[in-house]
Amino acid sequence: MQLNIDHIHNLIQNYPDFPKQGILFRDITPVFRDIQSLNILGEFFYEKFRDIDIDYVAGIEARGFILATLLGLKFKKGVIMIRKAGKLPGSTIKQDYDIEYGTATMEMQRDSMKKGDRVLIADDLLATGGTAATAAKLVEELGGTVSGFAIIVELLSLGGGKLLKSKGYPLCSMVSY
Amino acid sequence: MQLNIDHIHNLIQNYPDFPKQGILFRDITPVFRDIQSLNILGEFFYEKFRDIDIDYVAGIEARGFILATLLGLKFKKGVIMIRKAGKLPGSTIKQDYDIEYGTATMEMQRDSMKKGDRVLIADDLLATGGTAATAAKLVEELGGTVSGFAIIVELLSLGGGKLLKSKGYPLCSMVSY
Repeated sequence: MQLNIDHIHNLIQNYPDFPKQGILFRDITPVFRDIQSLNILGEFFYEKFRDIDIDYVAGIEARGFILATLLGLKFKKGVIMIRKAGKLPGSTIKQDYDIEYGTATMEMQRDSMKKGDRVLIADDLLATGGTAATAAKLVEELGGTVSGFAIIVELLSLGGGKLLKSKGYPLCSMVSY
Repeated sequence: MQLNIDHIHNLIQNYPDFPKQGILFRDITPVFRDIQSLNILGEFFYEKFRDIDIDYVAGIEARGFILATLLGLKFKKGVIMIRKAGKLPGSTIKQDYDIEYGTATMEMQRDSMKKGDRVLIADDLLATGGTAATAAKLVEELGGTVSGFAIIVELLSLGGGKLLKSKGYPLCSMVSY
């Protein structure tokens, strides 16, 4: 099947200076709004990861939840939420990570998976890779294995792809800038 | 098709005093983690809304994104994000709403839909209905019509269902407490 990646590429909008001066924001909301794009996303990542063992698809809050759900249904696997701190009840594990000024924290429920589970991590955007690497750490702290990363937009100049590959994680991004 | 709603009901976990003293938190993360539940959710809401015109499914940040994606794929419609303020680029509209202490703000992009579009709004939980009613206001401010609300868990004592019905919105919730 020939997938029309250009269709997705053309829908991504560019907003200079959002959310702050100097940042060029790549907006994928028009992609999610378009059912044809959702189907292309599903097919694209299914082709890339169909031969890899996956028990769950984990989405990174918040836009990652959309791709994670799409891929969960495609791979017929449940969806796990990797959330910002304070939003998940019960016993959880946390990881701090650096953001531009200071640190942020991500959290997972301890019972969200069991030892040995293989998890595909989904997010809309890969920049420095700090968030993605932290998500992987959480999965591994729970005894799981990262099957790979499914990313819609990769910002090559920020080095996230190199970081993830240096740690041995399979990475598939659809559109690169 | 006989849908096993009990299967979903049984997966929902109860956490007293989360996120604060006196609140009984109904946790649906085990539902999202379970592919059988995702399929039941899709079938359930499809049966309820299949005869209603829908152009988009809108999800309320953040857990609503998961159900919205599930239903978007089921209805073969695109997914719109209704977000907390400050996260959407471009021209947007905002609505304040009351939360326990003070106010919060929700936001949609102006170009997320066009006049006359019919929108099914999805969220995981309906409590007082403040968030849901605000989401509806945003859709209507953009010239759209609310086709209905798809809700996984409704907390009957908090009155959100009555509020939405008093405004004439079709409401379908799967599990009630």
